Amino acid sequence: MPEHVKTPDPARRSERSRQAILTAATELVSEVGYQKLTIEGVASRAGVGKQTIYRWWPDKGAVVLDAYLALTNADAGLTFPTTDDLEADLRLVLTSTVGQLADASFARFYRSLLTAIQNDEKLARQLNERLLGPWLEATKERLRVAVRAGEIADADLDAAVDLFYGSFYYRWLLRTGPLSTEYCDSVVALLLRALRP
Amino acid sequence: MPEHVKTPDPARRSERSRQAILTAATELVSEVGYQKLTIEGVASRAGVGKQTIYRWWPDKGAVVLDAYLALTNADAGLTFPTTDDLEADLRLVLTSTVGQLADASFARFYRSLLTAIQNDEKLARQLNERLLGPWLEATKERLRVAVRAGEIADADLDAAVDLFYGSFYYRWLLRTGPLSTEYCDSVVALLLRALRP
Repeated sequence: MPEHVKTPDPARRSERSRQAILTAATELVSEVGYQKLTIEGVASRAGVGKQTIYRWWPDKGAVVLDAYLALTNADAGLTFPTTDDLEADLRLVLTSTVGQLADASFARFYRSLLTAIQNDEKLARQLNERLLGPWLEATKERLRVAVRAGEIADADLDAAVDLFYGSFYYRWLLRTGPLSTEYCDSVVALLLRALRP
Repeated sequence: MPEHVKTPDPARRSERSRQAILTAATELVSEVGYQKLTIEGVASRAGVGKQTIYRWWPDKGAVVLDAYLALTNADAGLTFPTTDDLEADLRLVLTSTVGQLADASFARFYRSLLTAIQNDEKLARQLNERLLGPWLEATKERLRVAVRAGEIADADLDAAVDLFYGSFYYRWLLRTGPLSTEYCDSVVALLLRALRP
């Protein structure tokens, strides 16, 4: 078929709608918060019908989580940095998160999502199954590589990953202090001291 | 004056009203959440007028924080356990918190307060000034005692206290896993490894 003859391409149109929906969901969570977001509002901003959204997603939690995964590039798969320098890998993960949270719009989005899971067990489960669980597992796998290489001791890695991320989230969610790259360095240094053989 | 002649005792009546207000605030945060609580609702449940509340507290954040401090006995002063056994002192603090959070009504109260500070900078500041800040300071002071005794190294204590509490709050707020006394043991063991001289 000659190239200049335009025919509808349902797959491409679908992908365009999907992207518009995820963008609308991202913007609305940042602007009004997860709790006030409605499927109607997302549909209206994305320029699609409500039924288009419900064809792909069962509820707003599922749309927003897909939006979050797309935003953090986690939809392409969760891979923890694995070079031959454990300390650098750990620092990279924390400093990247500091960088993301410096974006006020991203920070509002993520804070709103974490606020919503306090009263929404189903959303909490979805977030854990789709993001937090796999990410904690990827982190533990990185630490297991280090255990096998004799770089760190064979410690309780469940508690270790909580120490690693927890310090960071504690400061951010309880708003007890600023996040900085120096802070990331301190956390990584203490964690490595805790784990050294 | 003969004892059987009852006279009004304004101080005692004030204290009764104050207690009734704090109890009403505690119950309402657990039942409807911080955000839906109103001064009118507290006044009505406590059987006092709104003006009585405003005479003692400038806003609902201040009432609820006083209720929280009374609930956790923190109004009597924040003292970190300081025996000659650092590990036992640290474990006691975490396991006490696990015990408190096992009370569903207390857990709802505290979760609601921490949810509210995500969108309320003023409340976040009040919580930090009146509770979290002094408590982190008390924790660092306990660690300084251990540094002076040569039990732990002179590490970055700001990061150390965040590791200590953070792991715990991470698991609770991000709902990634259960809290247990075994978990407290693991966290304390890792922290002490990180801090040993």
